Amino acid sequence: MTQNATKNERVVEIFDIFKKHLVKFLEEAQPNHEEYTEFVKWADRLGRAGELPLYMDVFVETHVLRTVYGDKPGTEPSLLGPFYLENAPLVTEKPYKLPMREDEKGEKLIFKGQVTDVDGKPLANTLVDFWQDDANGDYSSFGADAPPYNLRGRFYTDDQGYFEVETIEPIPYKIPTEGPTGEFLDFIDQHPYRPAHLHIKFDQEGYESLITQVFFSGDKWLESDVADGVRNSLMTDLHDRGDHKEARLDFVMRKDQ
Amino acid sequence: MTQNATKNERVVEIFDIFKKHLVKFLEEAQPNHEEYTEFVKWADRLGRAGELPLYMDVFVETHVLRTVYGDKPGTEPSLLGPFYLENAPLVTEKPYKLPMREDEKGEKLIFKGQVTDVDGKPLANTLVDFWQDDANGDYSSFGADAPPYNLRGRFYTDDQGYFEVETIEPIPYKIPTEGPTGEFLDFIDQHPYRPAHLHIKFDQEGYESLITQVFFSGDKWLESDVADGVRNSLMTDLHDRGDHKEARLDFVMRKDQ
Repeated sequence: MTQNATKNERVVEIFDIFKKHLVKFLEEAQPNHEEYTEFVKWADRLGRAGELPLYMDVFVETHVLRTVYGDKPGTEPSLLGPFYLENAPLVTEKPYKLPMREDEKGEKLIFKGQVTDVDGKPLANTLVDFWQDDANGDYSSFGADAPPYNLRGRFYTDDQGYFEVETIEPIPYKIPTEGPTGEFLDFIDQHPYRPAHLHIKFDQEGYESLITQVFFSGDKWLESDVADGVRNSLMTDLHDRGDHKEARLDFVMRKDQ
Repeated sequence: MTQNATKNERVVEIFDIFKKHLVKFLEEAQPNHEEYTEFVKWADRLGRAGELPLYMDVFVETHVLRTVYGDKPGTEPSLLGPFYLENAPLVTEKPYKLPMREDEKGEKLIFKGQVTDVDGKPLANTLVDFWQDDANGDYSSFGADAPPYNLRGRFYTDDQGYFEVETIEPIPYKIPTEGPTGEFLDFIDQHPYRPAHLHIKFDQEGYESLITQVFFSGDKWLESDVADGVRNSLMTDLHDRGDHKEARLDFVMRKDQ
């Protein structure tokens, strides 16, 4: 038994590639040892504060998505982000409405869309997993003064791949700025705002999970989203219907490789 | 006032270079989104456990040193590592002896050397900052059952740049393996050992601080040091002098840029 049972060839492969590019980065950036130790102190504060997922999702995830999924067919993915929770309540009663407080603040929004494959075939019974911020810009379970799964819900598309759900209009929000992530934002002189968006994750047997976001035209932070998550193809219009707003975007899933 | 007072142009520059090489890394490694999220979960555990400095110093610092300082004149630097403490006791009584317990275990070692500039000129009154593990492979203040500055001390070279200090022979040790760093070692099938070494930091007005290590020929871990800190020029012989061992290495500092 010389082979380590937990050895993971993919980790070895990725780490070797990482080292190669790390050296190229260092050759160009030429950080001196003091800059290295200052960076490590900051990274330690970041890690101990539990902000590593926040930092990664704000500053790295978009590059993974663009680089690895950028030229594939189907709806462009966007950030999962640090605020996703698995096992949100399953909503079965139609018309669908996200779990929310009785006096939930914010503008009522009806959001709808159709889910198809890349050939336009409707994908019936696709699981749609929805999450978003509230009228204070907070996510339930992450700072919001709300029940744990507030404004989080899952439901299925109908036999034509359609869904329609009642929620509230999401608002732009600030990522947390009190900790080491905020320190970094100050250093690079970047504001902490994200444009308003809905998070949606689609799951369908035989298809790649689609994790994406929906943005709304006219938002003042579209061009400078701190997390660089905006894609033109993920933008839609908010229509005023008097007592509520309405928006629609269709989604295209691609087959599992 | 549109300029952010805390903006740091060097951070902006390094971050831009980082993003460029990150994209090249991602293009080659092609991590899928699940691999990304698994990585973030592991990195979050690493950060929350306070192991980021350990991980960085074991897996990244050597690349900073080789890439940024590799072709400069003078003694090669080696890792500062995560076990350095500032303000170790100043030892003034000659012959110098590192602070240690009365019954300190281990083989007595006399270590000596001369500090010069790149032209061979002796550097008198250079501050020599010394730290090492004990006979259990532990560092004081980091797990050792010893006083906080045990086997840590600072002293000055004489008017010929010489120093000589009594300590104990350092031994090879394992970096911590119970946490996420150990998990990573398992994945890449790398043992956790470092060869025996002395840590020394030299400070002299007008010269770059020299942070380096001393290794001993014959050590079984020289070739596979987990932290890749060994340099041939930092290796010396341990001579048996009956009731103690003796070793010498000379050091060359380069002027401040």
